[in-house]
Amino acid sequence: MTIRADGRQADDLREVTIEKGWSAQAEGSALVSFGSTKVLCTASFTNGVPRWLTGKGKGWVTAEYAMLPRATNSRNDRESVKGKIGGRTHEISRLIGRSLRAVVDMKALGENTIVLDCDVLQADGGTRTAAITGAYVALAQAIEWGREKKFIGQKASPLLDSVSAVSVGIIDGEPMLDLAYVEDVRAETDMNVVVTGGGKFVEVQGTAEGAPFDRAELDALLDLALGGAVDLAAIQRSTLAASR
Amino acid sequence: MTIRADGRQADDLREVTIEKGWSAQAEGSALVSFGSTKVLCTASFTNGVPRWLTGKGKGWVTAEYAMLPRATNSRNDRESVKGKIGGRTHEISRLIGRSLRAVVDMKALGENTIVLDCDVLQADGGTRTAAITGAYVALAQAIEWGREKKFIGQKASPLLDSVSAVSVGIIDGEPMLDLAYVEDVRAETDMNVVVTGGGKFVEVQGTAEGAPFDRAELDALLDLALGGAVDLAAIQRSTLAASR
Amino acid sequence: MTIRADGRQADDLREVTIEKGWSAQAEGSALVSFGSTKVLCTASFTNGVPRWLTGKGKGWVTAEYAMLPRATNSRNDRESVKGKIGGRTHEISRLIGRSLRAVVDMKALGENTIVLDCDVLQADGGTRTAAITGAYVALAQAIEWGREKKFIGQKASPLLDSVSAVSVGIIDGEPMLDLAYVEDVRAETDMNVVVTGGGKFVEVQGTAEGAPFDRAELDALLDLALGGAVDLAAIQRSTLAASR
Amino acid sequence: MTIRADGRQADDLREVTIEKGWSAQAEGSALVSFGSTKVLCTASFTNGVPRWLTGKGKGWVTAEYAMLPRATNSRNDRESVKGKIGGRTHEISRLIGRSLRAVVDMKALGENTIVLDCDVLQADGGTRTAAITGAYVALAQAIEWGREKKFIGQKASPLLDSVSAVSVGIIDGEPMLDLAYVEDVRAETDMNVVVTGGGKFVEVQGTAEGAPFDRAELDALLDLALGGAVDLAAIQRSTLAASR
Amino acid sequence: MTIRADGRQADDLREVTIEKGWSAQAEGSALVSFGSTKVLCTASFTNGVPRWLTGKGKGWVTAEYAMLPRATNSRNDRESVKGKIGGRTHEISRLIGRSLRAVVDMKALGENTIVLDCDVLQADGGTRTAAITGAYVALAQAIEWGREKKFIGQKASPLLDSVSAVSVGIIDGEPMLDLAYVEDVRAETDMNVVVTGGGKFVEVQGTAEGAPFDRAELDALLDLALGGAVDLAAIQRSTLAASR
Amino acid sequence: MTIRADGRQADDLREVTIEKGWSAQAEGSALVSFGSTKVLCTASFTNGVPRWLTGKGKGWVTAEYAMLPRATNSRNDRESVKGKIGGRTHEISRLIGRSLRAVVDMKALGENTIVLDCDVLQADGGTRTAAITGAYVALAQAIEWGREKKFIGQKASPLLDSVSAVSVGIIDGEPMLDLAYVEDVRAETDMNVVVTGGGKFVEVQGTAEGAPFDRAELDALLDLALGGAVDLAAIQRSTLAASR
Repeated sequence: MTIRADGRQADDLREVTIEKGWSAQAEGSALVSFGSTKVLCTASFTNGVPRWLTGKGKGWVTAEYAMLPRATNSRNDRESVKGKIGGRTHEISRLIGRSLRAVVDMKALGENTIVLDCDVLQADGGTRTAAITGAYVALAQAIEWGREKKFIGQKASPLLDSVSAVSVGIIDGEPMLDLAYVEDVRAETDMNVVVTGGGKFVEVQGTAEGAPFDRAELDALLDLALGGAVDLAAIQRSTLAASR
Repeated sequence: MTIRADGRQADDLREVTIEKGWSAQAEGSALVSFGSTKVLCTASFTNGVPRWLTGKGKGWVTAEYAMLPRATNSRNDRESVKGKIGGRTHEISRLIGRSLRAVVDMKALGENTIVLDCDVLQADGGTRTAAITGAYVALAQAIEWGREKKFIGQKASPLLDSVSAVSVGIIDGEPMLDLAYVEDVRAETDMNVVVTGGGKFVEVQGTAEGAPFDRAELDALLDLALGGAVDLAAIQRSTLAASR
Repeated sequence: MTIRADGRQADDLREVTIEKGWSAQAEGSALVSFGSTKVLCTASFTNGVPRWLTGKGKGWVTAEYAMLPRATNSRNDRESVKGKIGGRTHEISRLIGRSLRAVVDMKALGENTIVLDCDVLQADGGTRTAAITGAYVALAQAIEWGREKKFIGQKASPLLDSVSAVSVGIIDGEPMLDLAYVEDVRAETDMNVVVTGGGKFVEVQGTAEGAPFDRAELDALLDLALGGAVDLAAIQRSTLAASR
Repeated sequence: MTIRADGRQADDLREVTIEKGWSAQAEGSALVSFGSTKVLCTASFTNGVPRWLTGKGKGWVTAEYAMLPRATNSRNDRESVKGKIGGRTHEISRLIGRSLRAVVDMKALGENTIVLDCDVLQADGGTRTAAITGAYVALAQAIEWGREKKFIGQKASPLLDSVSAVSVGIIDGEPMLDLAYVEDVRAETDMNVVVTGGGKFVEVQGTAEGAPFDRAELDALLDLALGGAVDLAAIQRSTLAASR
Repeated sequence: MTIRADGRQADDLREVTIEKGWSAQAEGSALVSFGSTKVLCTASFTNGVPRWLTGKGKGWVTAEYAMLPRATNSRNDRESVKGKIGGRTHEISRLIGRSLRAVVDMKALGENTIVLDCDVLQADGGTRTAAITGAYVALAQAIEWGREKKFIGQKASPLLDSVSAVSVGIIDGEPMLDLAYVEDVRAETDMNVVVTGGGKFVEVQGTAEGAPFDRAELDALLDLALGGAVDLAAIQRSTLAASR
Repeated sequence: MTIRADGRQADDLREVTIEKGWSAQAEGSALVSFGSTKVLCTASFTNGVPRWLTGKGKGWVTAEYAMLPRATNSRNDRESVKGKIGGRTHEISRLIGRSLRAVVDMKALGENTIVLDCDVLQADGGTRTAAITGAYVALAQAIEWGREKKFIGQKASPLLDSVSAVSVGIIDGEPMLDLAYVEDVRAETDMNVVVTGGGKFVEVQGTAEGAPFDRAELDALLDLALGGAVDLAAIQRSTLAASR
C-alpha cells in the first residue's frame, strides 16, 4: 500500500479534533479540524418555524456554509461583496442541511428551528465533510440546550442517530480515504459519503473527475468510507460525552 | 412485482422521445420527453474559450438549466424577477455540465466553447435526467456542426462516448426506475445516476429522503439505473443516426 | 407592389398558427407561431389578488415576457444569471399586461388573478405581437376554466372583446405588415399596434428608427395594421371554437 | 370648450419655462418646468464611445431618467435602495434616448458620447415629455461645447433638427393637451407624442387606459399634439438663442 | 492670516443660503447652498413607525443621502444602475440620521416617522454638512406641519434644539473653516463637526488624510467649527422665522 | 472611581491578546481578543495594484470587515444571503482601511496590494477597534514577508509607525475605556479613537448616543483613549518581536 504525502496509509483519516462549545454565544458550537481544514460550526436555536411549516407541529433544521476569503491559498472575493452566492456554496449548504435533517425527528423537535452555520476558517480539502461532522456536534448540543430549557418535550430526544461525512477518492488508481487538498486536485474520482452512526447511507455523491468509474471502483470507495465513518462516529461520541 | 400508477413495471422507463434539431437557430438542439417531462436543449457553439482557459489549446463545455414559471403544477416566480438563481438551479446546471464534460476530449475540441441550455417546458419528475439525456444529443449535433465547419480538427471526434441519466428510487420498499413526479415525492431514497454509453458511472447522487438506506438497497438501485441507461443510449444512438 | 424575401405581399401576415392547450399544467395555454417566431403562452389562474387591490371586488391580469437564451441567432445571457431584468423585457411585459387588461372587466373577474407567461422559444421578429395574440387565447381558456370551477360568477364573461397585435413598418419607403427579423432591422419606422376584435386601438407605439415619419406614413401604417388585426381575430376565434 | 381645473383651454400648454445652464458642472444643462413639473436635465460630454461602437467613426447619445423620492405626493423608495430599476424608469429612459438620437447625425458627432440625465425634482404629470423637451436644450448646449472645444469637426452641426414632446389625452370624451397629474389619472386614453422642429413624428405612444379608442379620437389627439409641439419648439429656440 | 482662493479668511463660511419650502409636495423642504454646493432636502411625514419600534409610543427620524450623477465635475454612475449603494453614501446617510435624531424627543414625536431625503444637485465640497444644516430646516417645518395637523400632541415641540454641521481642515498647516472642493482635496486633516444650537457636540469625525494630527491641531479645528456653528444656527433661525 | 461589571477600573483595558500567524495560508495573520471579542485578521499580499493606481509606483492597502452570523447573541442573516452589504459593514471596512494606510508609505510599498480581512468570530463590543489593532499585526507580518521575498525594496520599511484603536465612552456621566457590549449599549457618548505608536491621532469619531456632549467631556475621553493606546502599542510590539 502506498504511503501518502503526509505519511498516512490509504485508509487513514487525517487527525480529527472537535472542540465543543467554542462559542460563548451560540446554543451549540464546535470547532472541527480534519488535518489543516478548520471549520467553525454554530447552532442557533429559535422558537418557531418558517412560515411554510407553521402549525404542523414540526421543527426545522437548516444550514449555511461559507468560506472566509483567505481560508484558501489565494484570496477569494467575498460573496457578500459580489452580491450573490455561488453555486458551490449553495450546493454544500443544501447538502449539510439534508444530512442533519436525516437524523432528526422533526415531530419530536416541535415547532423550533435550528440553523447551523459552518464557516471555513482554513481550507485544506474536505471542508464539506468536516462541516457535516462538526455541525452534528453543534446540533446535538443545541438540542440538549432546548431540552434543558423545556422548549423540546422531555420524553425522547429528537436525535435519531449521529451523522458524519468523509471524502474518498481514487488517485493513481488507488482508493484513498479523507483527501487533503493536494490529493483532491489529482483524484480521478471523488466521492463524498454521509453515514449515520448506525452505518447507513444518508448521501452518496460520486463524481468522475477524470475517466468514468466502474462498479468495482465504486464498491471499494464505499468500503473505505464506511470504515472512516466508524472512527468519526466514535470521535463525535467521546466529544459529546466529555464535560465542558 | 407492483404495477405503477401509469401501468409501468418497476424497471420500465417512461416513454422517451428525442426530437433532434427542434431549433432553427442553434448549432444543436433536442426537445426531449420522459413521459410528460419536456425539456428543450440547445447547444451554442462559439469560437474561443473563457479567459481562464485561454491559450491552453483546450475547449470548454458548460450548461445552464432553468424551468419556465408554469412548467409545474403551480406557478413559480421567475429567477430573473427574484434577481437571483436558487440553489437547486445552480446545482443541476453544474451537474449537467460535469456530465457532458466527462465524455468530451477537450484537447480534440480545440479552443471552442459549447453552452448547453436546458429549459424545462413541462415538469413531471426527472427533469435533470431528461436534460442530460437530451443535452447529449444537442451536444453531438453541435460537435458535428463544428467539424463540418472545420472549427474542430477533422481527425478524431472530441466525443469519447455517449452519456445519459436516469433517476431511481425506493418507494414503499421497492426500487423503481425513472420516477414520475407523484412517485418522486413519495420516494424514501432518491438517486440520480449518470452513465456512459459504455456503462461506466459519471455521477452517482443518492439521497435518503426518509430513512437512511443500506448497502443492499444501494446495489439494487444501481442495477436498475444501469439497465435504464442501456435503453437510453440506444434511443440517443437511433436519434442521432436518423437524418433530419 | 414589391414581393418580400419570403414571397409575401406588403399586406400579408406570415403563417400564423395557435396551438391551444399545449401545456398539461396551466389553466390556459397556447403555442403561437408567426412564421418562425414561436412563443409559449401560459395562463395561471389563482384566487385572490395582490395586496394593493384586496377588498375592492376586482381581479387582476398581468404578464411576464422572456426569451430563452438561444431563441435568437446568437446566444444571449440569461437575465436570471445577470441578476437583473433588462429594460426591453420590462417594457414588453408591461405592454402585454396592459393590452390584455383592456379587454377584461375586472369587476366580473372577481378577486382572482391571472398571470400570463410568454416565453419566446424561437425569435424571428414580432415576438411581442405574437405574445399578445397567443396570450389572449391562453387568457380566454383560463377564464373559461375559472367559470367552470365557479371561481368566476356565471352571468356574463369577464371578456369584453378579443385582442391581438401586429407589427408594421416602412421599408425602403414602403409600408409593410408583420415584419420578419430581416425586415425589422431595416425598417425606417417600426410600429406595434394592438387592436380589439371590434377594431379599436388599445396601443399604438410607433418609433422612427431612421428618419422621422409624417402623418401620411402614419396613416398608411395604421391601415395595414387594422387589416392584419381582422385576420388575427379570425384565427383566435377559430382556435378557441375548436374542441381540444 | 370646457375650461380645465387650472383655467386652461383644451389646447393650451401649461406654463413652460426652460432655464438653460442651471448646472455649473455639466457641459449642457436645463431646468425645465411644465407647470409644477420640474426636471433637471444635464448633458455629460465624453470622448470615446461604448465598446460595441468603437472604431465605427460614430458617436452615441443615451439618457437616464429618475425621480427624487419625494418628487411626488407621497414618498417612493429609492431605486438604489431597492437595488433594481423599475420597468417604468427603464421604459422612459429608453424613450428619451431614442427621441434625442432621432435628431443627431452620429457620423457628424464623431466618436463622442453624450449622456443626458433627467432627474425629476417635482412631479405633476408629463415628466417624460418635460424631460425630452429640456434634454434637447442640454444636448444642444453640450454639442455646442464640443464644437468649441473642437472635439466635434467644425463643418456642420450634428444636430439635424430640434425635438420636443407633449402628452395628450381624452378626458370625459374631450381631447386635451399637456395633462397635469389630476387630469392624467382620469384620462381614458393617454398619448405621448415626440415631434421634431420640422413637425414630423419621432415617437407616438398611445394607450387606452379605459375603453379602446377609435381612429377619429386618435386623429384628434395627434392634431393637438402637433399644435403643442410648435409652441415647444419656439420656446426651445428662444432659450437657446438667449445668451447666458 | 492667509487669504483663500475665493477670498475668504480662514474662519469664514462660504455664502450660506437656505430656501425654505422649495417643494410643493413635501411636508418640509429646503434648498440649501454652501457656496456652489446645493442640496435639496425634503422631509416626508408619515403616521406610524417601522415594525421594530411599533407600540413603544416613540417616533422615528431617518435620512437618505444621494448625489445626482452629474452633481460633480465628471459624471458618476447612478447607484440604482449599479444595483448597490456605495459605502460613502451609506455612511453619510447614517450620519445625517444620527445628527437629526440627537435634537428630537422621540416620545414627544409620538408614533410618527419623518424621512429626510438629501439629494445633492451640485457638489463643491461639504455636501454632508450642507445636507445636515438644510435637513434640520426641513425637519422643523415637517414637525410644525405635524403639530398643526394634530398628529403630534400639542404640548411641547419634539424639537429639543437646532443642529447644524460644518467641515474644518488643515491646509498647508493652517486650520480653515468650511472647505470648498479644491481645499478639501489638499487638506492634511479633515473634520466634520455636528453642533447643536446650544453649542454642544453631536458628532466629531476627524480623519488624518496625510500625516496624523496632534492634540493642539485637534483643538484648533474644534474652535473653528464651534465658531461656524454659531453662524449657521443664526441662519437656520432666521430662515424658519421668515414667513413663506 | 466606580468599579465596572467585570471588575475593571474606568481606565483599564480588557485582557488583550494577539495570536500572530494563526493562519497557515495568509502572508500575515492575527487572532486578536479584546476580552470576549475575537477577530481573525488575515493579510493577503499580491503583486500589482488596482487599475486606477497602475503605473504610479505606489502600493495599496485596503480592508474588509465582516461578522459571522452567530458572532452575536442572536443570529444575524448573512450579508451574502441578503445580497447586499449593510451600511455599518461598509463604514467599518472603510475605517480600518484608512487607519492602516495612515502608517504605510505607499511609495516604499511599491506596486503591491495588501488586503486585510477582519472577520469577527465572536462579538462583545469594540469589534472595530480590535480589528484595527489586530490588522496592524497581520499587516506588519505581510510587509515583512514581502521584504523577505524582495517584492518590496530592501531599504526602509514601508511601515512608518504602528497603529491601534480603542473605544471610550461616557456611562452614567463617567468616562470609561474599552467598552464591553453591556457598557456600549448604555453609553451616552461613544467614541472610537485611532492612534499611532507615536501618540498622534489618525481618526477621532465621537457620537452622542444620548445627550450632546461638551468640550470638557470630549477632552476627558481623548485622555483616556491616548492612555489605552500606549498599552495597545506595547502589546503589538511584543507580539511582533516574539518568534513564532
